[in-house]
Amino acid sequence: MTDAEDLADRLRSGELRLYELDEQTDADTAAEARRRFIEDETGATLDDLGTYTFDAEQASSANIENLVGGVQVPLGVAGPVTVHGGAASGEYYLPLATTEGALVASVNRGLSAIDDAGGATARVTKSGMTRAPVFKVGGVAEAETVVEWVDDHTDQLREAAESTTSHGELLAVEPYVVGDNVYLRFAYDTKDAMGMNMATIATREAADLVEAETPAELVAISGNLCNDKKPAAINAVEGRGRTVTADVVLDRELVEETLKTTPEAMVEGNTRKNLVGSAKAGSLGFNAHAANTVAAMFLATGQDEAQVVEAANAITTMDAREDGLYASISLASLEVGTVGGGTKLATQSAGLEILGVGGGGDPPGSNADALAEVIAVGALAGELSLIAAFCSRHLTSAHEDLGR
Amino acid sequence: MTDAEDLADRLRSGELRLYELDEQTDADTAAEARRRFIEDETGATLDDLGTYTFDAEQASSANIENLVGGVQVPLGVAGPVTVHGGAASGEYYLPLATTEGALVASVNRGLSAIDDAGGATARVTKSGMTRAPVFKVGGVAEAETVVEWVDDHTDQLREAAESTTSHGELLAVEPYVVGDNVYLRFAYDTKDAMGMNMATIATREAADLVEAETPAELVAISGNLCNDKKPAAINAVEGRGRTVTADVVLDRELVEETLKTTPEAMVEGNTRKNLVGSAKAGSLGFNAHAANTVAAMFLATGQDEAQVVEAANAITTMDAREDGLYASISLASLEVGTVGGGTKLATQSAGLEILGVGGGGDPPGSNADALAEVIAVGALAGELSLIAAFCSRHLTSAHEDLGR
Amino acid sequence: MTDAEDLADRLRSGELRLYELDEQTDADTAAEARRRFIEDETGATLDDLGTYTFDAEQASSANIENLVGGVQVPLGVAGPVTVHGGAASGEYYLPLATTEGALVASVNRGLSAIDDAGGATARVTKSGMTRAPVFKVGGVAEAETVVEWVDDHTDQLREAAESTTSHGELLAVEPYVVGDNVYLRFAYDTKDAMGMNMATIATREAADLVEAETPAELVAISGNLCNDKKPAAINAVEGRGRTVTADVVLDRELVEETLKTTPEAMVEGNTRKNLVGSAKAGSLGFNAHAANTVAAMFLATGQDEAQVVEAANAITTMDAREDGLYASISLASLEVGTVGGGTKLATQSAGLEILGVGGGGDPPGSNADALAEVIAVGALAGELSLIAAFCSRHLTSAHEDLGR
Amino acid sequence: MTDAEDLADRLRSGELRLYELDEQTDADTAAEARRRFIEDETGATLDDLGTYTFDAEQASSANIENLVGGVQVPLGVAGPVTVHGGAASGEYYLPLATTEGALVASVNRGLSAIDDAGGATARVTKSGMTRAPVFKVGGVAEAETVVEWVDDHTDQLREAAESTTSHGELLAVEPYVVGDNVYLRFAYDTKDAMGMNMATIATREAADLVEAETPAELVAISGNLCNDKKPAAINAVEGRGRTVTADVVLDRELVEETLKTTPEAMVEGNTRKNLVGSAKAGSLGFNAHAANTVAAMFLATGQDEAQVVEAANAITTMDAREDGLYASISLASLEVGTVGGGTKLATQSAGLEILGVGGGGDPPGSNADALAEVIAVGALAGELSLIAAFCSRHLTSAHEDLGR
Repeated sequence: MTDAEDLADRLRSGELRLYELDEQTDADTAAEARRRFIEDETGATLDDLGTYTFDAEQASSANIENLVGGVQVPLGVAGPVTVHGGAASGEYYLPLATTEGALVASVNRGLSAIDDAGGATARVTKSGMTRAPVFKVGGVAEAETVVEWVDDHTDQLREAAESTTSHGELLAVEPYVVGDNVYLRFAYDTKDAMGMNMATIATREAADLVEAETPAELVAISGNLCNDKKPAAINAVEGRGRTVTADVVLDRELVEETLKTTPEAMVEGNTRKNLVGSAKAGSLGFNAHAANTVAAMFLATGQDEAQVVEAANAITTMDAREDGLYASISLASLEVGTVGGGTKLATQSAGLEILGVGGGGDPPGSNADALAEVIAVGALAGELSLIAAFCSRHLTSAHEDLGR
Repeated sequence: MTDAEDLADRLRSGELRLYELDEQTDADTAAEARRRFIEDETGATLDDLGTYTFDAEQASSANIENLVGGVQVPLGVAGPVTVHGGAASGEYYLPLATTEGALVASVNRGLSAIDDAGGATARVTKSGMTRAPVFKVGGVAEAETVVEWVDDHTDQLREAAESTTSHGELLAVEPYVVGDNVYLRFAYDTKDAMGMNMATIATREAADLVEAETPAELVAISGNLCNDKKPAAINAVEGRGRTVTADVVLDRELVEETLKTTPEAMVEGNTRKNLVGSAKAGSLGFNAHAANTVAAMFLATGQDEAQVVEAANAITTMDAREDGLYASISLASLEVGTVGGGTKLATQSAGLEILGVGGGGDPPGSNADALAEVIAVGALAGELSLIAAFCSRHLTSAHEDLGR
Repeated sequence: MTDAEDLADRLRSGELRLYELDEQTDADTAAEARRRFIEDETGATLDDLGTYTFDAEQASSANIENLVGGVQVPLGVAGPVTVHGGAASGEYYLPLATTEGALVASVNRGLSAIDDAGGATARVTKSGMTRAPVFKVGGVAEAETVVEWVDDHTDQLREAAESTTSHGELLAVEPYVVGDNVYLRFAYDTKDAMGMNMATIATREAADLVEAETPAELVAISGNLCNDKKPAAINAVEGRGRTVTADVVLDRELVEETLKTTPEAMVEGNTRKNLVGSAKAGSLGFNAHAANTVAAMFLATGQDEAQVVEAANAITTMDAREDGLYASISLASLEVGTVGGGTKLATQSAGLEILGVGGGGDPPGSNADALAEVIAVGALAGELSLIAAFCSRHLTSAHEDLGR
Repeated sequence: MTDAEDLADRLRSGELRLYELDEQTDADTAAEARRRFIEDETGATLDDLGTYTFDAEQASSANIENLVGGVQVPLGVAGPVTVHGGAASGEYYLPLATTEGALVASVNRGLSAIDDAGGATARVTKSGMTRAPVFKVGGVAEAETVVEWVDDHTDQLREAAESTTSHGELLAVEPYVVGDNVYLRFAYDTKDAMGMNMATIATREAADLVEAETPAELVAISGNLCNDKKPAAINAVEGRGRTVTADVVLDRELVEETLKTTPEAMVEGNTRKNLVGSAKAGSLGFNAHAANTVAAMFLATGQDEAQVVEAANAITTMDAREDGLYASISLASLEVGTVGGGTKLATQSAGLEILGVGGGGDPPGSNADALAEVIAVGALAGELSLIAAFCSRHLTSAHEDLGR
């Protein structure tokens, strides 16, 4: 009887619980024992989950609990495409992990058009990871004194916040009052880290100071004005993580030959669908499918998949110019990092390597900026391709050709 | 020289392009050739991407283009939890694939509390996959005639739409007029399929009929009132895919002993953060982190990761009752399927097997309903756990204990 | 000593309270007494408030309590304009009551352009006054049974609701479940009445039936899914009161000569401001200043000023066509009536008479439809004029010329 | 034949147009001529419109064009109520102009409860009138340079903006980039003026500087990120005009005796309706009927009625405390002034006098602050009263008792 089988038996008997396995054995064996136990409990066959190359010990300490194995998501590449970014510069192949057929092909077609046009321009126009604790006060009179204290003590708050981190910098604290609630939205420069944990820990320290020096009482370290993983206007308006825009001008010939449509048709399609349609839908996302590219590149590079939610706060614009088609996409709240989180895992690290942005950048923050810019270019490519396809009525048949 | 090396050479020389490899060799060899080529181009090391167990041929035909390999995401399990659903019934272990440490532990803690309370109740309260083409008309007078025609010819539209599918049923067509744009929101029962492609193909057929019989001209098969992969009120209000609620009553002792807080504190935390905070943020998501559970279970079961966007349209409510704490989460637009898309991939199929909902259900649709219900219970667990943690100020330290 | 002076004395002494005056004397005298009392209390001079011609008794019974007098708002007219509506037909002068200089002139300029183009087309594309009570249930399982009961008993609900009204008709009941809350959105055809009170009374009767026949317990007759007087996507998407669109095609020459700009500049201005700008602002209003026209015509015709809120859920579209400029405005939730509310007051009745839509229409509902259509044309005129002014950079100077 | 009759004849003959009358005669005679002409054209009887006491010349130059007369809206008073504000202090009677029966009574009931509790507290927590022009640039790279220039030249922009006004002060300029659009949101302290025109004129000057010094080209002086008279999250989140909160603690006995309900029922009603209901409705207004009080006080004091739209961005909170009920309302974007606009008109000036806030305050801005605070207290009263009524199921019968 192997160790794993033995441990599985002890799970079956109730002697051990799933999470207690980590104290009994190494991470790989624990995962195997859990697979055997779950197979018995559910009748499932979990062998495939046991095929993984990441370091199970590391994953168990940083990324997952009750490890059972690994899910495999197919990864394709699109490109190359030339990017003229503030941080990204040169030619890039984009790694995309997805199960939605036709997506990589669609992005690839868009990138090809962009590359033929000489590449896309991209810029991070705003940056800052936010955390917004909610405090309870006696009422609006007390709220006013708390807000005044905060405004007058930004330096102390910065000192407290930054005492918890070697990299992060407090950029701003914005107060919001709703009755007897005071929300303080802290924004940080977290360099190449996506920065949620850094921001949380730093804000906790600052919140302690607020509690010590004012009558405010902390209710929750996140009061939902951050706003993390919920669709919220505050992110769409003010940004979170990286606010990034990518754009390109495609000359008329290129639009007609590569995208099989005209600048005017693209503009009309974009207006009727992405602008007017989204307006009528009460949407915060004025784009065709930015989330597709974002989700696929997030998966491929170890980002937080749940933050795809905010990434969908994107606006696509198109304008027919004399020289052809101007197209842009502006992602308000793209939270990305090249260190920490899932970026250390073997395959995700490979995804970052394909883009040449793994680890900390020089200067700090430049790798995450570059990642944001390249994702934006990928999303722009997806918009160009899908809108062209919709306009020329090829979407469904494209799907059909691919056999689904 | 292996085939892969030879093909990589031909990529390097420009003789072949990435997507042309599929015609030259089998899918695994093509992926290997692409890895070698990309390694040369970028300096990355991609061996880990070559470790996968899914059927590369199948993936290449249905899920991905320019296949390079597989991304591995750690998968853990939480539970067991008892679910009293409309379709789900009994005990479930929840598979969660994520790189965010503490998430599985958090859901597990919540599930444990729910299970101690006798389990959670769950119901799909509305169902329908939507697709909303946008048509161009001459003006509002013509729009009126188009809308009247649509209202008078629902049967013909149904016949056309359903002619393209053996399973799908057209449930309703809702017209929206904005100037010279007419949007028709088609809703389908797509049974156990998530149903986007089914809905697209069926709607295309119906749209052809509209074009043939009225002056309306199709602009795009999706006019963004569907609304797919964008945060939009139309989904939050009217639903898309499954609209599902899960709830539980935890008695006071349980809240105090398991969650280390009180029903009153939970209610206050939920109100100040999830309701008032989200209100001030201009949000469509009135919850703590529903997207986390949804994204992790979507990954584990082969769902479309980009649709996490809509899943975040969720409202968490808490109410202190005499007998303890009532807690619920209502997800307005959870698009799930147990057939098609990524569900056939080896590890994703294993994820569905853990839940016992792989493939088509009996009756049709019941497997996808059950999946939706269990995800809702998982999200409810995450809410209970995180709100309790926030209230008792344990979040940051929980993260710290886990070494991040 | 007059009666009024005497009564004012009794107010001063505390013998009487403000609202008790109505039992002591006629409405005009009561108002005079209140004016004298308030003058004493505050030092204000209120003579001007005493100049009014409405029937004080009637107003006191239907429109106001603690009547003190009347506020006078300047009223101007714009037009004439030809309207090709579903209910409105022919030439109209538009009464606008406002204190914002340049507004009437702006609307007038737009109407003039529209009239030169042969008039505007308008249609009410959807109609229904809504009221959405919120019920409390035990949980989602009970919610499901309540919703099923409602779906199965629409006829009884209609009978109950319609038993309270001679005119109103129940059109639909739409259920929404959020945890242990069930919201039922009742929609009524209220003919020429704006219909809020009719809908409230009818819904109360239907709600009694729901309470009697199901475990649901009524919490509030309005659960804010109606949604009355709050900016809400549910109204912008699904409509409330009248959903109405007006449009016009202005030939190129007209745009250039009357509006001093080009179709292309108008389209660009509309896209960058009304579509993209509003998108970035997280708005439900994709227009320049529809609320201005609506508020002014509401005041002039006795509508509910607080419902201007929903009327601002409007989308303006512009499209450069071969033959010139297509422009439209779509107001999703314009609540208007020509009977009841403030429509009986002397000056407001005069406002309706100017439009020829006072009182009940033939067929019932046609007067309110016509009012909605003419307001939409007025709002369209305001859009054309202001966007043209912005594009040609005349707004500020227009204001300056008018001396403000 | 009177002058008016003669002029009306000349209108009928087409010799004169409506707006040309102002050059022919005095404002009162012009209005009379227009009434006669419109009566002939439409068959309406407009005598009542001729009863007004405002200065027609002044109104014609500042508030209206094509003056025909005045609309009279019934005005009632509610109160007195004690306000402990940052600017307002002492006892106030609130003037409310409305045609919605029961509204004054409802506010009065709420004010009475508040006054019994010792009065309400109120604070303006943020202030600033905004104007946000949209500029067109070549693309995102150029947008970056424009934004950098703006950030580096705030002093020059301030100098330019403030050169146009003796009172206004530029508080901040916030840039937003969307593709080739740059929006600059200018915020001003406009003291006792509502300030839209002041902000427009000042921003125009600053925009000229931006155009002169950067490649940006002004498209529209308002790019809809201001955001004026549209429901928009940017105002709900960041505020516009005055951001003001009012709150009160009502002890349990008071709630039970005056409001005929309990703190717990109020909290539950507020949560299920104003928080959860509004959440499900996709709303920016989390209140019962704040717009009612705002609209009525706006009318009574000469404010811009169309700005009621933004005022409806309000959140009502209730919390059951040991000592009773805490209730608050937070209005994010209440644009008010005590000078300019409609405030000079006779009856509107009287409305301001009732509140003791007419004209410029000492210090400047304090009168407008006080007006904002008192309106907030009025809105709070309306919330307390209506929620209590809903909870105790008295709303419909209240309306019924009043005969409608």
